[in-house]
Order: sequence, then structure tokens, then C-alpha cells
Amino acid sequence: MNVHSVDDEGFRRRAGALLRSAANDLKRNTAASAEELGVTEEQIQEYFSGRHEIPGSVHSKAAAVWPLNERDLLPVRNDCPEGVIVLDVAASKSSSRVFQREDIDYYEYRDTAMSRLASFRPEWIRMLSVVDDDDPNNPNVHWNKGHLLYQFTYFVGPVNYYYRWNGESHVLRMETGDSIWGLPFSPHTFTARNDSEPAYILALTYGGELMGDAQHELAALGPSTARKFAWDENPWTTQIRLLRSHIDAAMLSVAEVAQRSKVTQDRITELVEGAAIPSYSEIESLAAALRVSVRDLLPVSPDSPGGISLVRAVDSRRWLYPSAQQADYSVRQLAGNKLHPYTRALEIQPLRDSDAAAISTHQHQYLYNVGETPMTMRWEYLGKRYEARLAPGDSAYVMPFIPTSFTVDSAPAAQASAARLLALRIAGRIGVEARVALGSMHPGSLERLLNEDRQWY
Amino acid sequence: MNVHSVDDEGFRRRAGALLRSAANDLKRNTAASAEELGVTEEQIQEYFSGRHEIPGSVHSKAAAVWPLNERDLLPVRNDCPEGVIVLDVAASKSSSRVFQREDIDYYEYRDTAMSRLASFRPEWIRMLSVVDDDDPNNPNVHWNKGHLLYQFTYFVGPVNYYYRWNGESHVLRMETGDSIWGLPFSPHTFTARNDSEPAYILALTYGGELMGDAQHELAALGPSTARKFAWDENPWTTQIRLLRSHIDAAMLSVAEVAQRSKVTQDRITELVEGAAIPSYSEIESLAAALRVSVRDLLPVSPDSPGGISLVRAVDSRRWLYPSAQQADYSVRQLAGNKLHPYTRALEIQPLRDSDAAAISTHQHQYLYNVGETPMTMRWEYLGKRYEARLAPGDSAYVMPFIPTSFTVDSAPAAQASAARLLALRIAGRIGVEARVALGSMHPGSLERLLNEDRQWY
Repeated sequence: MNVHSVDDEGFRRRAGALLRSAANDLKRNTAASAEELGVTEEQIQEYFSGRHEIPGSVHSKAAAVWPLNERDLLPVRNDCPEGVIVLDVAASKSSSRVFQREDIDYYEYRDTAMSRLASFRPEWIRMLSVVDDDDPNNPNVHWNKGHLLYQFTYFVGPVNYYYRWNGESHVLRMETGDSIWGLPFSPHTFTARNDSEPAYILALTYGGELMGDAQHELAALGPSTARKFAWDENPWTTQIRLLRSHIDAAMLSVAEVAQRSKVTQDRITELVEGAAIPSYSEIESLAAALRVSVRDLLPVSPDSPGGISLVRAVDSRRWLYPSAQQADYSVRQLAGNKLHPYTRALEIQPLRDSDAAAISTHQHQYLYNVGETPMTMRWEYLGKRYEARLAPGDSAYVMPFIPTSFTVDSAPAAQASAARLLALRIAGRIGVEARVALGSMHPGSLERLLNEDRQWY
Repeated sequence: MNVHSVDDEGFRRRAGALLRSAANDLKRNTAASAEELGVTEEQIQEYFSGRHEIPGSVHSKAAAVWPLNERDLLPVRNDCPEGVIVLDVAASKSSSRVFQREDIDYYEYRDTAMSRLASFRPEWIRMLSVVDDDDPNNPNVHWNKGHLLYQFTYFVGPVNYYYRWNGESHVLRMETGDSIWGLPFSPHTFTARNDSEPAYILALTYGGELMGDAQHELAALGPSTARKFAWDENPWTTQIRLLRSHIDAAMLSVAEVAQRSKVTQDRITELVEGAAIPSYSEIESLAAALRVSVRDLLPVSPDSPGGISLVRAVDSRRWLYPSAQQADYSVRQLAGNKLHPYTRALEIQPLRDSDAAAISTHQHQYLYNVGETPMTMRWEYLGKRYEARLAPGDSAYVMPFIPTSFTVDSAPAAQASAARLLALRIAGRIGVEARVALGSMHPGSLERLLNEDRQWY
């Protein structure tokens, strides 16, 4: 791993812009800011401009004298100047380490591609504990305690997957190409059913909507307040709670909602008490009355009863992309959940030896060649073209909106051992609301959002 | 302002949990973490436990050798141990400072209540520049350049409000109780129409969905990528883009969407090209085919053509809360926008001298007594009861879910000068998706989310 700092110049420039923005927001000019932070005006100009690194002591002082937090002043580092990071299998192997559980060698871990721009924490993990049955109480099965990250798992070889939900232990016999999507903090573990063939997983953990700002706010508010935010995953109760939360947020009376929406008071009472389901036209009327979008009154609908979602290779859907007429890729759908509409796990098999369609998405992408032959990846970023080989075991991180194409050396490739990508795509921090907000800012404001460079008041 | 550090013990504990979580996520045990961060195992145990502050140099080292950012390791400070922060009018006055624009005294600023838990940056601002016409080009009118924060403005006295949108300058003659909600980066300014009566505003700026994680990610990705995230605020084009982005995210072909949804290929092509509007039943079919919730295919619908939303005191809606039968408060709706469904500005007039209903919401709240007489505020937090007086000009910050009630000294109060609250309520970082995710975690996981205290792998 790189022991030098990453993207220092960009980091300094963005940190300077953040400090300037914070002073702006608090209506402090340069002189007042310098005085309150205990530095000279010349120094603070150096910080604002990004010419000089801001010492940690200045951030601590700011968090002490101003109503903000250190983290508000610290930007993200961009470690991906070419738009893509490739980690080859040799580098991955050199990160190998064996972990014990209860005194037996249990897993071999290897890092694969990661970036500071995304919350992927993907590991290649080989199962070292071998079992000869499917008993979750087998003495060679050692459980973990679950973790905060969401986990998508892709299986290769004879792996047993064990998980616990509502106090019950389950085991699933997995085969190559099967996949699982699991919820945070579910205890789980893996073993091999034999030691004569490879048995490993790609454990692609990532942070969801609970990581970052939300987690920090919940932690600062403390458990008693945090608990009140939790909503049952049942879409029916979520819908009731959404309606109630909007009425409470606007401090409305039932009579006022009725008058605005032309839905009767009795009916509204019935709806907020969960005694009836609103029709779509009632939702439209209520949304208008509450001055919210219709989407704001519709629930998130998870679809993982029992904590996990399982897709067997043999049952999975497969299609040609971009179309049957232009069959550049064969795509197979892997496990996922409606709770994460922008998390998509795919197996992508390139079918062409040239001229394959470029693929682009707003998501962050993690790629791993799970096949037995190499492929070529091509992409374009900031007007430059790049090309890289992805050998078996090579992995890559791809920034949002980078058009990438993939070809094999000779097409058509044999199905079983063909080069193919395991792809996990996840949403970053820029959600639908933020995208619309970006588009509805005062024209020409984007650069200022990214790099505030002036005093505004 | 407090020059001592705030919530040091909680900050240390949460910072320790974050460092431990990061090591967990990267599958580093204590020994490996210590070695990679260049500290001893004893030191890292002190950091993990929160007994010892983590030096900035350790955070810098972590950001250099691990694929994460400094800000991922820094928690939020809780400066609100009693659930409410009150700033009295004397403290507010003592923060008074006069700012010039183009060499004339233009504004007197005063801070009001703020907290590190929320993005409110509320200021009391008196207009020092007096005009005798409504001409935006009057030489006493000096514009700002707009700012990133959203701004809700409440007007007191004869204030002129000027704003620019699409290159055109506008002026609005405001009266006491009028309010405005404006979009980021719109240039705007204020003057007084005379100097014989008070002319001031409460400028309640706050960070929306563009601040925090989203802003940092956009800034690190850089302008060319950031620009691609921006979506037109037109709900009709947003709906088309949402449908397309979900199809792209899942790398689906039109044929595959058609097969799953039973909507024909021709019709899907028509919809993604924006040549037709999907019916609600088509949206339901497409959502199921795309494995997303219906809400994910419905647009955000802003309602501020021209950049601002204006509510005149004389036109505004008023109702009794919680009901006409139990009229504890008279509530008046102020300016807002559907783009921010959980931002609600209200004027709340307490009508009782005792036994008023407690009000509670999941939002962060800012309160300011805009009346001419005091009121009493009562609240409960962590099993303790509190009481505070809110005199005219006093302001307060209230944490989410704190039940608060307000009474006047003698009821009924005279309408014109009566104690009444300007309330601005904003959503924090815990959105609907995060609330459902909280509720769908493995049972009993909340404490671990807030304070990871163990090695998990």
C-alpha cells in the first residue's frame, strides 16, 4: 500500500474552500476569522487559497469556537486521477494474510481494488476450515458477530454459508456463481465442503445509507434519540409513518389536512391510524395538501425476509446487452434488495473481440475477473483514452460516468472458463434529491459548490 | 462563544469506535492496525476505547496507508446535553457586528442559537441602508453573490428584498410576517424603506442535501463528473431520467425490461425517450421489473419557479393545533418548497397559560421569539424535565424528538404584540432510506452502529 499522502494538492485546495465556506456561512470576514482561529490574516489567506496545509490545531480551534465539527472542514481525497484503479492479482496475493478463529486457521484474506472515493471494502476470502456435513453446530464452524457494512457475496467452489436470523441458524450449500446479499450485523460464517478444489468467496462489503453523515449524526444524538428514528421495514407501516411524519413535520391538524386535501377528517384519522390503505388518488391529494412530492408518501419496500437474499446461478436471469441484435455482453443478475435500488450485482461476460459497446452508469463500480482467461478494458476520462488488461483475479474500481468497454482475445469464448466480470455497482452520496438540487441551483453555481472561492456576504 | 472544546469525552469515544470500525472493515486486527499506523498495540487500544485522544498524525497516517479519508474517522460533537440550547437576546446583542458593502454600513449582524448537531446558520440582520424607491439599481442597493446554503427569510418592518434570477433583477416590498424561501447561489440583498422604525430580518440559512457527504464526493470527483449528476428540476424530465438511470444501473436491455414488466418494447422506448408519460400501473410494473420501490421511479417536484417562494402574511394559512377543540396554539404557514419536504417554516403562537400540548417532530428545530412578550418553554429529555423563559429576541435550538410545550403568562394574549415563535424545522442526515435501514438491521444492532466496540471478523 502507498505510504505517501494521496492527492495532497487537491485536498489542500478543497480544505481551503471548506474553511472559507464555513467562515462565510458564519458571516466572518478574513480578519474576524483569523482573530477567532488565532492565526494571522496572511496565514488564513494561505489556508483559504489552498497554498498551505491547514494544521490540525486550526481545525480543532474552529470546532471549539465555531458551531461546527472538524469533519465539516475535511474533504475527500481523490486517489483515482485516471478514472479507474486496477489492482492486479499479484498485488492482491501479496496482501494475503491468514486469520484464526478459536485457534484454527479459518480464512485467508486478500485485498482487492479499493478507492477513497467509494465505500467498497471488497476482499477475496478462502475458506480454510473444512466440514463434512451441513450442521451449523459442527465444531469447525466458527461464527463472527456480524458487521455494519452491507455484504454482497459471490461464491466459487464448494462453500457452505451459515447465517443467523431471529436466533435461528441456517446453512446453505453454495455452488460457483451463486450469490447472497445480506443485512448489517447478521452473524454469519463460511466453510469449505472439501479441500480438493478451490473454495473461496468475493466478500464485497460496502457502506449504505447508514454510513457517513447519518451514522455520525445518530451517534452524536445518542441511542435514546437514535432509536426513535428506526422504522419497521414493513412497507405498510412505513407508509403510515411517512404520512404521520409529514403531518407532524408541518405541525398540521387533521382538520387542516382535510380542508386542503378534500379527504374527510374521518378518513384521514383512519389512514394515520393504519386502519386503511390510501388509494393512489388519495395519496396525490394528501401530497398536494402537505406540499410534498408523491414519492415522499410512498414507502421503501425491502424484499429480504429473513435477512438475506439468495440467487442461485442455475436460477438467475441472463440477457444480452445492449440487445440481442448487438450482443456485446451476456449479463447475469446476481443477488440484491429493493432496499438498495442503486446497488446492482452483475456477472458480465464480454462476447466480442473488438468494438464492444461502452457501458456507463452514475454508480461507483467494483469489477473482478472471475473467469480463467484475460480480457481488455478500455475507457475514456477527461478526454484521454486508456486501456488495461484484466487477467483472472485482477480487480478494478471505476468512477461514476466513465464509459468502459470490455473485449476478449478471441470470440466467441467458451462458456465455462470464459473471462467474465463480477461487477458490484453502488450508489455514492449523491442521491436523487441532491441531483435535482444540483440542477435547480442558480445557473452557473456548480463550480462554487465544489470550490467556494469568494466571500459572499 | 465557548473557547473550550465541546463534548470531549463523547468525541473521543466515538472517534475510537470509528477507528476500530475502519480497522474491522479492512480486516485489520489490533496488531496489524498498530503496525500500519505506526503506533504500539497499547496505544491503539487506548484510542479504540476512547480513553486517549487520537492525534491528528494518526488520522493522517490512516488516510495515507488505508483507502479512507480523515473525515471518515471524525465524529460529530454533541453540544446539546440537555436537548435544547437557548441563546438569550443579551448574548445575541453582544455578538453584534456591522458589515460594510462598498464603503457604507450595510448590515448589522447578530448571531442567534446554533448547534453542532444541525446545519442551521441563523442570523438576525438589520438593514442599515435606506432607500426611497423600489429600484434595484438604486445606488444604496449593494448585492451579494449568493451562497451555497438554502435561505429562509422572515421579515420585520419595511424591508425591501431584491433578488436576481436568470439575469433579471426583482424587488419585493416586504411587511412584517412575510417570508421567503430561496435557492442556493441566488444573488440577493436587502434595504430598509425608512429609518424611523425597526427593519430587520431573520436570515435562517441551512445546509440541504448538497452539503456534507454529497458535497465532498462531488468536489473530489471534480467538475466534469459532478456536472453529469445535475438533473433538471422539471419533474417530467426527472421522471424520464429516473427510469433511464435505473435501467442503466441494472445494465438491462429494453427487451429484458419488456419481458419482466409486460410493457412492450415500443412503449418502453417511448417512455425512456420522453415521448409519453407512464401511467401509474405502468410505473408499478416497471418498478417490479427493475426491482425498485415505486417511489424510486417518481420525481421530486420543486415548486419555486423563478428561484424563490414567497408567502405574504396577509395571504398565509392559519390553523389551530392540535385541533379547534383543543386550541393550544395558533399556527401560521410560512414559505417553503416541495424540493425540501422536511423543511417547514411556521409561526407558532401559544394560546394557553398552562397545560399546552407537547409538540414533537423528527426534525431539528430553530426557534426565535418574534413577539413583544415572553413565553415559557417546557421540555423533557432523558427522563428529566426542563423549563426556560423565551423573552423577545431569545432563540433556541431543539434536538429531534424532544417534546416541547409553550405557554404565555396570561391568556388569551393580544394578537399584535403576543409572544410568538418563528420556527424553522429542517431534516437532518437521517433520511427515509436510513430510517428503514435502521429498522431492518439485525435485531439489537443499533448500539453497535452507534458505538462499535468489538472486532467482528
